[in-house]
Amino acid sequence: MNRVVTLASRPEGFPDEANFELVEQPVPEPGPGEVLVRVLWTSVDPYQRGRMSEARSYAKPVQVGEVMTAQAVGEAIESNDSRFVPGDLVVGQLGWQDYAVVRAGSVRKVPAQLDPPTLALHVLGTTGFTAYFGLLDVCEPKPGDTVVVSGAAGAVGQIVGQLAKLAGCRTVGIAGGPEKAAELRELYSYDVAIDYKNDDVPASLKEACPDGVDVYFDNVGGEISAAVHGRLNVGARIAICGQVSQYNAVRPEPSFHPGLLIVFRAKMQGFLVSDYAHRFDEAAHRLFRWIAEGKLQWREDVTDGLENAPRAFLGMLRGENRGKALVKVADRF
Amino acid sequence: MNRVVTLASRPEGFPDEANFELVEQPVPEPGPGEVLVRVLWTSVDPYQRGRMSEARSYAKPVQVGEVMTAQAVGEAIESNDSRFVPGDLVVGQLGWQDYAVVRAGSVRKVPAQLDPPTLALHVLGTTGFTAYFGLLDVCEPKPGDTVVVSGAAGAVGQIVGQLAKLAGCRTVGIAGGPEKAAELRELYSYDVAIDYKNDDVPASLKEACPDGVDVYFDNVGGEISAAVHGRLNVGARIAICGQVSQYNAVRPEPSFHPGLLIVFRAKMQGFLVSDYAHRFDEAAHRLFRWIAEGKLQWREDVTDGLENAPRAFLGMLRGENRGKALVKVADRF
Repeated sequence: MNRVVTLASRPEGFPDEANFELVEQPVPEPGPGEVLVRVLWTSVDPYQRGRMSEARSYAKPVQVGEVMTAQAVGEAIESNDSRFVPGDLVVGQLGWQDYAVVRAGSVRKVPAQLDPPTLALHVLGTTGFTAYFGLLDVCEPKPGDTVVVSGAAGAVGQIVGQLAKLAGCRTVGIAGGPEKAAELRELYSYDVAIDYKNDDVPASLKEACPDGVDVYFDNVGGEISAAVHGRLNVGARIAICGQVSQYNAVRPEPSFHPGLLIVFRAKMQGFLVSDYAHRFDEAAHRLFRWIAEGKLQWREDVTDGLENAPRAFLGMLRGENRGKALVKVADRF
Repeated sequence: MNRVVTLASRPEGFPDEANFELVEQPVPEPGPGEVLVRVLWTSVDPYQRGRMSEARSYAKPVQVGEVMTAQAVGEAIESNDSRFVPGDLVVGQLGWQDYAVVRAGSVRKVPAQLDPPTLALHVLGTTGFTAYFGLLDVCEPKPGDTVVVSGAAGAVGQIVGQLAKLAGCRTVGIAGGPEKAAELRELYSYDVAIDYKNDDVPASLKEACPDGVDVYFDNVGGEISAAVHGRLNVGARIAICGQVSQYNAVRPEPSFHPGLLIVFRAKMQGFLVSDYAHRFDEAAHRLFRWIAEGKLQWREDVTDGLENAPRAFLGMLRGENRGKALVKVADRF
């Protein structure tokens, strides 16, 4: 049988476990051009909150009763396409379930030498590519720039800070709690860490950014972002990667004055990593090399058992994870 | 004597004539490297509202008791700099007054063939350059794009629409009142005009932009902009040129959700024409040619008499002007 975590109901405000249901279904059969994949690790990420609701967004919502959408790494166990043979590791939108049938063209092979293969779910996958294109393409960092990152200890933020250091920038990371703040400095090479749960964020930013803010990589929105906007330099670039502080608001309030962009001749740009799919190989090649050279640190926070995916997801939304939040579904055959 | 319109007090909310005072002072004497200029036409523009208040902005506020800052065209009547001789027409920040002493390097010569010389205060001056760089550099319009302009009948907006047509775009202008809407279509070549005072703006935009909005040149902010944001296309570019709907608010409310930029992978960028000073010659050359070829229409709304500058300014803030609002101060000798 195939265990499947479905969306049971749409949340109002912060979701809870009752919004999900674990059901059993027959293992699906792959049709022509399709591959049957056994999921080994699946992922929990902030964007999934958006897919739970019907508000207009860049992707269709998950329907009630459907499997929760998720990036996952799995093992091909039956293939009706010449690109894959049983035993291949693949990564793609496999969902929160034990088995997925996917079109062969919708998944990528995980290179056999990738150790651990879960790197394909973070540094060498969506979150790493998000950091790479969001920082390097959208923000155009220059040596000497001060780069501020919110959600800095998250899967994207931890990579953004390190890439900004590689680009010769000074980095200031904002995260919640003293443990994460220490991790920002010690593991992810941030020059300054601000703990928004205990520090006075505007005062800390003032002290941390004596030359102002040239680049702001925004994962959170809301009050933290408003504090960063108060310290922008002329010509600042703001990448809108996420607005996680707003995702659970029943009616999010507008939080930004566009006129501020005139004062600082600043650019604010939203982006989606999927728009850079034609350049994923470039990003993967460079990120892989930086990992091999010890220049990119990363951390995983693995929850065991598919049935615990909703709990891991809710904990991630509350910021309880330390490193990339993953769910281990099965051991490899 | 030199008549000078000074800032008498800072407005709370919408300004009135009591915020200004007409005083008489001795005509100033030019020092070394300075030029004494007799003002012929002075200008009233939305940005002057910002200079009346102490809120943080890109330029220092006018101090109470100081002459109101303004672009103006005048005639050099005494010059202590080799670049100017008496009789030269110059344009620069001469203010609302009869006579100004300026550093020679802070004003530009108005070419003798410019007819009328007031073109240096709009199409071939700050507002024309604002339209040129704001549209062409910030928004990067492409043939076939749908370009929406708010404040479309204003000094900047009327040029933006025509430049967008020259770039092969479809243009939708938003202005207040049926007369301005007619002018948008008939004089400034807008494909569609929306009268925000009488039309249902969201419904009109939906009808006017069946293929969505690729470029939004924003002069006004507030509710009109929120309606445009609802119709953006993926990859849309938004130039923040002004936010005139907010300038008189005692406490402007945030009006924008940055998360919208993710949904549309859109860019919102503020700019100031002064940052393009090194390219003013390029803009002037092209705009002049388009005027000569009859490809750029323009209109002036001239108020007579320096003493009426505050009234002209307040009328412009209320949107009563038709074309670029100017004040005629004196005839040429």
